[in-house]
Amino acid sequence: MKSTGFYHLGELDGAHAAALVARALELRAGAAPQRFPGRALALYFLAPSLRTSASFQRAAQKLGLDLLQLSGAGTWGLETRDGAVMDGDAAEHVREAAPVLGRYADLLAVRAFPKGGPAEEEFRDPVMRAFREHAGVPVINMESVLWHPCQALADWTTLEQLAVPQRAKLVLTWAWHPKPLPHAVPSSTLCMAAQRGMDVVLLRPEGWDLHADVMAEARRLADAAGGTLTVTADRAAALAGASVVYAKSWGSLTHWGDVEAESAARANLRDWCVQPDWLADGARFFHCLPVRRNVVVADAVLDGPASAVVEQAENRLHAQTALLEDLLS
Amino acid sequence: MKSTGFYHLGELDGAHAAALVARALELRAGAAPQRFPGRALALYFLAPSLRTSASFQRAAQKLGLDLLQLSGAGTWGLETRDGAVMDGDAAEHVREAAPVLGRYADLLAVRAFPKGGPAEEEFRDPVMRAFREHAGVPVINMESVLWHPCQALADWTTLEQLAVPQRAKLVLTWAWHPKPLPHAVPSSTLCMAAQRGMDVVLLRPEGWDLHADVMAEARRLADAAGGTLTVTADRAAALAGASVVYAKSWGSLTHWGDVEAESAARANLRDWCVQPDWLADGARFFHCLPVRRNVVVADAVLDGPASAVVEQAENRLHAQTALLEDLLS
Amino acid sequence: MKSTGFYHLGELDGAHAAALVARALELRAGAAPQRFPGRALALYFLAPSLRTSASFQRAAQKLGLDLLQLSGAGTWGLETRDGAVMDGDAAEHVREAAPVLGRYADLLAVRAFPKGGPAEEEFRDPVMRAFREHAGVPVINMESVLWHPCQALADWTTLEQLAVPQRAKLVLTWAWHPKPLPHAVPSSTLCMAAQRGMDVVLLRPEGWDLHADVMAEARRLADAAGGTLTVTADRAAALAGASVVYAKSWGSLTHWGDVEAESAARANLRDWCVQPDWLADGARFFHCLPVRRNVVVADAVLDGPASAVVEQAENRLHAQTALLEDLLS
Repeated sequence: MKSTGFYHLGELDGAHAAALVARALELRAGAAPQRFPGRALALYFLAPSLRTSASFQRAAQKLGLDLLQLSGAGTWGLETRDGAVMDGDAAEHVREAAPVLGRYADLLAVRAFPKGGPAEEEFRDPVMRAFREHAGVPVINMESVLWHPCQALADWTTLEQLAVPQRAKLVLTWAWHPKPLPHAVPSSTLCMAAQRGMDVVLLRPEGWDLHADVMAEARRLADAAGGTLTVTADRAAALAGASVVYAKSWGSLTHWGDVEAESAARANLRDWCVQPDWLADGARFFHCLPVRRNVVVADAVLDGPASAVVEQAENRLHAQTALLEDLLS
Repeated sequence: MKSTGFYHLGELDGAHAAALVARALELRAGAAPQRFPGRALALYFLAPSLRTSASFQRAAQKLGLDLLQLSGAGTWGLETRDGAVMDGDAAEHVREAAPVLGRYADLLAVRAFPKGGPAEEEFRDPVMRAFREHAGVPVINMESVLWHPCQALADWTTLEQLAVPQRAKLVLTWAWHPKPLPHAVPSSTLCMAAQRGMDVVLLRPEGWDLHADVMAEARRLADAAGGTLTVTADRAAALAGASVVYAKSWGSLTHWGDVEAESAARANLRDWCVQPDWLADGARFFHCLPVRRNVVVADAVLDGPASAVVEQAENRLHAQTALLEDLLS
Repeated sequence: MKSTGFYHLGELDGAHAAALVARALELRAGAAPQRFPGRALALYFLAPSLRTSASFQRAAQKLGLDLLQLSGAGTWGLETRDGAVMDGDAAEHVREAAPVLGRYADLLAVRAFPKGGPAEEEFRDPVMRAFREHAGVPVINMESVLWHPCQALADWTTLEQLAVPQRAKLVLTWAWHPKPLPHAVPSSTLCMAAQRGMDVVLLRPEGWDLHADVMAEARRLADAAGGTLTVTADRAAALAGASVVYAKSWGSLTHWGDVEAESAARANLRDWCVQPDWLADGARFFHCLPVRRNVVVADAVLDGPASAVVEQAENRLHAQTALLEDLLS
């Protein structure tokens, strides 16, 4: 991990992940962060952010790090394809941008959402892959096409904080959304819950499966941890007895890149909006935020005692502080 | 104040306001700021800023605070209406954004200009109200629809710095501008001068009154402090004997939301541009900046000895440092 | 230098420039930076940046400075013409913005690219000139129309780091690019190499001369340092025996402001793309970055051992740290 940074939570062995979660909970409880004077973290956002930006800014300062902040809007269009003849919009190649930032900071954290290319290209995660290959320093994935490991680490922390048993049932449910969204969060959630050894249920309408490689990774992790993984479109069966309902929308791989067809395919799916009666007694509601109220989930859920979304967000700070300590030690 | 932050200067009793001003002047004179290691301030700009951003950044660092910087451009479109079905542009609700930022920082400072809605809706100050209601930490108003209290505190500081007597005459004059501007600064200026016990004159063409609630608040504050409040369109009478001419443009409430009608109504008002002969002997010129030269005020005024605008801007730093000390103590 | 900041490297006498370079190399080798607690640097970007922003952020923090960050996108449109009647887009004049920022920080660093005006106007460098005139504190030029002195200082540092002899041959070669680019980097490179006393060759197609004033300045510096300056379109002769090939594209002064004519004029010049066989044995390739791969220079050059571009970029950090130390001492 130290040499390659933090790309996908599932790459960590279970004991390492559990140690990061435990440290996050210590920090949440008030433990003093380690201090790393003279070390630096660079944040490079090629996509919007509220929680990730704010929580990484705070984490860096809690650790006494120098903090470098960059956004795609203030920098140059970035090319990531090897061999490209750069006579179009992009003025800079990641083969220069990544090593240069690696000269200015000890750690480089990058956010890069899908750019609208074909699925087989995007799901190779080319931008994050290129940063990792060329930076020369550990790279932290602040959300790529495939993974959002900081969210997963925070969510695991939240499950422990709320004392959700290891073998509890966690339902990851698709939700309707006016736009086809990336897969990083649902993929990371599924794998995190599997890695924790939970009984994981993926609840989605037909046509909204996650990527086959992600499913294989989740099965691998579930097997290793002794949990289970089920995929279903049967909402009632899925939700029965669930301890956690984790909602998230994502785009259909069937219609990847075809916004109109995707929109038509989900036209009759607006009832995929989490309602209070979706939650069994004592069940908690999770979402990574931002969330569209009364579209993905009803106000009554978010404003009620079941909602854990602000706890999840707070744990971004503690989980990332623990992560940075680990990477810098 | 500690529980609710800093929304409108008029909510502070006079002694509290005077103490903040006195502390600002001490800091300007070189007093060492208090230090608050391990505490944090988050700045969230939903509208442009030069002075406010720069001066809050510096103030936070003078106090040893961790500093979180966010702008609307880098984050998600923000919904503020309760009960909204969020299937439009906004991807995040303030009911999540505010408490999440409150988990990352001890103080949250927000700027949110009017969004073009009807006056009766905008003048309830819905965005700032929502942040204050949901943040869970004190919220500092860095300019909302109704108020710009940090500007008012800095301006009061400048009046003391320049030894403007308490009962001096301060004229707040409307000025022509190519666009209808928000009311926060003129409203805050009027109330600040009234709260200080000055002889306050609101000079504006017919049709450019400030909001009735603001006028009532200014009268309340003037009465409490023993000052006076006059409204007039008689420029010569207003300016005679004035110690301070504070210029600012704002949009007509009569034509709120109707840019074309507003533009037509002010077509013959381009002579509302402050000239050197508007200033009585020894009078000082104030403006909050940014200011349109030779539109709102002539070069000769801004470049002459009467201008206090750069002092006002510098005092933003000292006033806000004093404010943050107060909120964190 | 202390009173006026850092505008053009050629304004420093040779010993001063050499001392800064020597200090930059010390810092690169691990020397502890001086610390300036309570002092502040404001960065104001009116144009995009990756290296400059990141390296100045890091340099400021290495020196313990308070850091203020502003960008044109988050602030107000800026007027720079004296006497302007500001009823257009710009809401703020540099005559206010500059002194206000000078009240908040001890040093002000500004980036301002050409705005598309006529050459005779732009080449007077009006924006940077106005900031320097009105800021009231030393202003650092982070790239203006005319000069990019921080790049020049970093490049000189890189030449020393790589032990390029003083009288070695440095070829500054024009390269094809899909857009006409500013002149600050080629002008600064030419003058830096001349000031270092190198045998400087400007290699460009007919019609792509640099500005006459820049050429005169380069000749003055070359004469003072005992070097030479040659201008040619003969690529083979220019490259023969060169120790350094510094590539950069820039727009033709002949067609300044006429993008279509410029584009037509360079239609047959796409072979001005640096290839491996342009480099003599042992020659190093320089570029300021960002660079368009396979347009300005072939992948094989950038990815081979001749390339110094990442070293140049790293030296931005060390050179600017040395510069800030010098300005603050």
